Amino acid sequence: MERIETANAEALARMFAAEPVLADVIPAREAMPGLKDRMILHAGPPIGWERMCGPMRGAVAGIIVFEGWAADLAEAERLAAAGGVEFHPNHHLDAVGPMTGMTTVSQPVMVVENRAFGNRAFCAINEGLGKVMRFGGNDAEVLDRLRWLRDTFGPALGAAIREKGGVGLKAIIARGLGMGDEMHQRNVACSGLFLREIAPSLARTCGDREALARALAFIAANDQFFLNIAMAMGKAIMDPVRGIAGSTVVTAMSRNGTDFGIRVSGTGDRWFTAPVEMPEGLYFPGFSAADANPDMGDSAIVETIGLGGFAMAAAPAVAGFVGAGAPSSAATFTRAMGEITLAQNPEWTIPAADYLGVPSGIDIRRVVETGIAPTINTGIAHREPGIGQVGAGVVKAPMACFEQAVMAIAEELGVA
Amino acid sequence: MERIETANAEALARMFAAEPVLADVIPAREAMPGLKDRMILHAGPPIGWERMCGPMRGAVAGIIVFEGWAADLAEAERLAAAGGVEFHPNHHLDAVGPMTGMTTVSQPVMVVENRAFGNRAFCAINEGLGKVMRFGGNDAEVLDRLRWLRDTFGPALGAAIREKGGVGLKAIIARGLGMGDEMHQRNVACSGLFLREIAPSLARTCGDREALARALAFIAANDQFFLNIAMAMGKAIMDPVRGIAGSTVVTAMSRNGTDFGIRVSGTGDRWFTAPVEMPEGLYFPGFSAADANPDMGDSAIVETIGLGGFAMAAAPAVAGFVGAGAPSSAATFTRAMGEITLAQNPEWTIPAADYLGVPSGIDIRRVVETGIAPTINTGIAHREPGIGQVGAGVVKAPMACFEQAVMAIAEELGVA
Repeated sequence: MERIETANAEALARMFAAEPVLADVIPAREAMPGLKDRMILHAGPPIGWERMCGPMRGAVAGIIVFEGWAADLAEAERLAAAGGVEFHPNHHLDAVGPMTGMTTVSQPVMVVENRAFGNRAFCAINEGLGKVMRFGGNDAEVLDRLRWLRDTFGPALGAAIREKGGVGLKAIIARGLGMGDEMHQRNVACSGLFLREIAPSLARTCGDREALARALAFIAANDQFFLNIAMAMGKAIMDPVRGIAGSTVVTAMSRNGTDFGIRVSGTGDRWFTAPVEMPEGLYFPGFSAADANPDMGDSAIVETIGLGGFAMAAAPAVAGFVGAGAPSSAATFTRAMGEITLAQNPEWTIPAADYLGVPSGIDIRRVVETGIAPTINTGIAHREPGIGQVGAGVVKAPMACFEQAVMAIAEELGVA
Repeated sequence: MERIETANAEALARMFAAEPVLADVIPAREAMPGLKDRMILHAGPPIGWERMCGPMRGAVAGIIVFEGWAADLAEAERLAAAGGVEFHPNHHLDAVGPMTGMTTVSQPVMVVENRAFGNRAFCAINEGLGKVMRFGGNDAEVLDRLRWLRDTFGPALGAAIREKGGVGLKAIIARGLGMGDEMHQRNVACSGLFLREIAPSLARTCGDREALARALAFIAANDQFFLNIAMAMGKAIMDPVRGIAGSTVVTAMSRNGTDFGIRVSGTGDRWFTAPVEMPEGLYFPGFSAADANPDMGDSAIVETIGLGGFAMAAAPAVAGFVGAGAPSSAATFTRAMGEITLAQNPEWTIPAADYLGVPSGIDIRRVVETGIAPTINTGIAHREPGIGQVGAGVVKAPMACFEQAVMAIAEELGVA
């Protein structure tokens, strides 16, 4: 249908024209005027306390204590259950968050500007591995780290980024695809490339030598540091693609641990949801599938721009890490995603696959026609609050989301 | 022959038992008691001024001016031609150097300790890209950079490494093999991983904020920074393998731009030489094969430990960069090198090749029997002094070196 093709061509053109730049780190309350006290942004489509999964509840209780809205976790849970806080998806305020995806007023957020379109997107700073809030952790260690990010690291990183005039992100991704990263479950190369970019500016702007050493060590020790930057970049790239009448391109995929939701360009900000699936993957020693929470996080935004599971060919080690088969077969995932996307990204190519461009522009029609669901690389959280990550795997976006979206677009175009 | 097998098993055991650690940066005169004033160490087997190629002569003239043994390049050339300086291979003083490989008393050298055997190996600091002495550059820009390395950067890096207690290198190589590096023509991942390791210590030990920023920026801007570390590591690993009676394992491959030389364990420190070959490769814009100098540098030490051309499967982008075919065919080089080596390194594996270990322990018998020459990834220098790098390619070790070595071992064992 010509109207759809024209709309999708426009969608792709906007995706590829994006100029994402990490421009600043500022408190969330400054970044998002709509974000108020006692408001909690979470990953995925809308959800209330009563339907939230274990790790999401754990994170909510933790962030309430962090913000000082309750004295301890028990009081925080009572507050949340009694409607004492307001819940909204990150996506509703130009933000994204990994796993539980907690965003609240006093947290520092990284600001990615899409300089081709003037929009901005936000994501909190990656906390590192181990016990962390994004996987439902909420004890003193977790909250202390969030305080350090808020009071010391965030302001230092923001100053360095401003001194440098921003960090262009497209080139980092292009290099990272030749260095084993797919920017979802593996960001070790991009985290290192980012450190290379920012370390000299950090040295210039951070006056306290020990604070500087700790900041450098924090980035250096966190192989997933870049994930949250990649996510904000994905949001900044896809937001201008929203609302193109007739376009069947997916602009967001996101999960709250209970529901999976997608948004499609031609239907604007409407969510199409279905129950999330369980990831299939590998578990850390001592854990098994019985411990796993269903799929969660806004991080699948990176798959909508052709990274993560779509760029598996770039990251043979990830195929092994997530239990998706032999490293040498990683390219089969990328080729399958080529079946449900509109084009290869001309700037983001994969040397190991003879410079194949990452498959870009998920077309809901092709997903439904082929029966091939988008593959998402993901971390796996423990189903109980307060425990954390137990593994990593791959998960499929539920077909029902795409079927609903196709029906809605058909109605929109008057062909249903 | 059982005696050879036993000797080679010992050689391999020593290679794999190595524990290379970057332990310090100190002036060459302190590192090498045998290195005196008016002595110049060069890459490759022994050679005098009269037989030196253009870029080697250019580098010699430049380093003479740098050391203050002559006032300008013309006087330096006259001094060198008149026998006013003494030439020795780096390899004769536990050192290695890339391309021309100039090492003299006042240069800072990186010290790699093999903590399993107690030996140390040395290499100067990588100067970066562009006009540099290792490719025969010798103008004011080149000498100014060497002065900054000597007076500021070298001491700062040494202090940081000491503060950290050394940087273990085996783990960096293991990670780099999953990030697109083969550690000869591509060191971008390992250079970044090294920056991650050292940046916090640099921040603690370097008091001057601007000097610190410049040091961090210098490492960050040099994708080949790690090459010289990898070379010193290679030398530190292979030196304890020398002198095992009956062993047919290659302990060094090296080129001075005129001759290619190898050393073999069972024949100790004897060089087997033959004329160097021309690299086959790709040239930077404006240059062609007519500008190229023949093969040069001690850097082929990395191939003796299974990296560089031997680890091409890890670095598909390099296969393209050096003109060696489609990126996806990079693994064919690694498999071919498997034909002339004794084992796969169990710790250095290549995810993209389903965790194939890098082919290790070049056996001169297999080289001669199969007719497969070791493949070396290399930079290409302009044949005239003072110009610099003009391309990159692959080059084969001359078969004649291996034939001579096999004859010598046969004599040694009384079977010739």
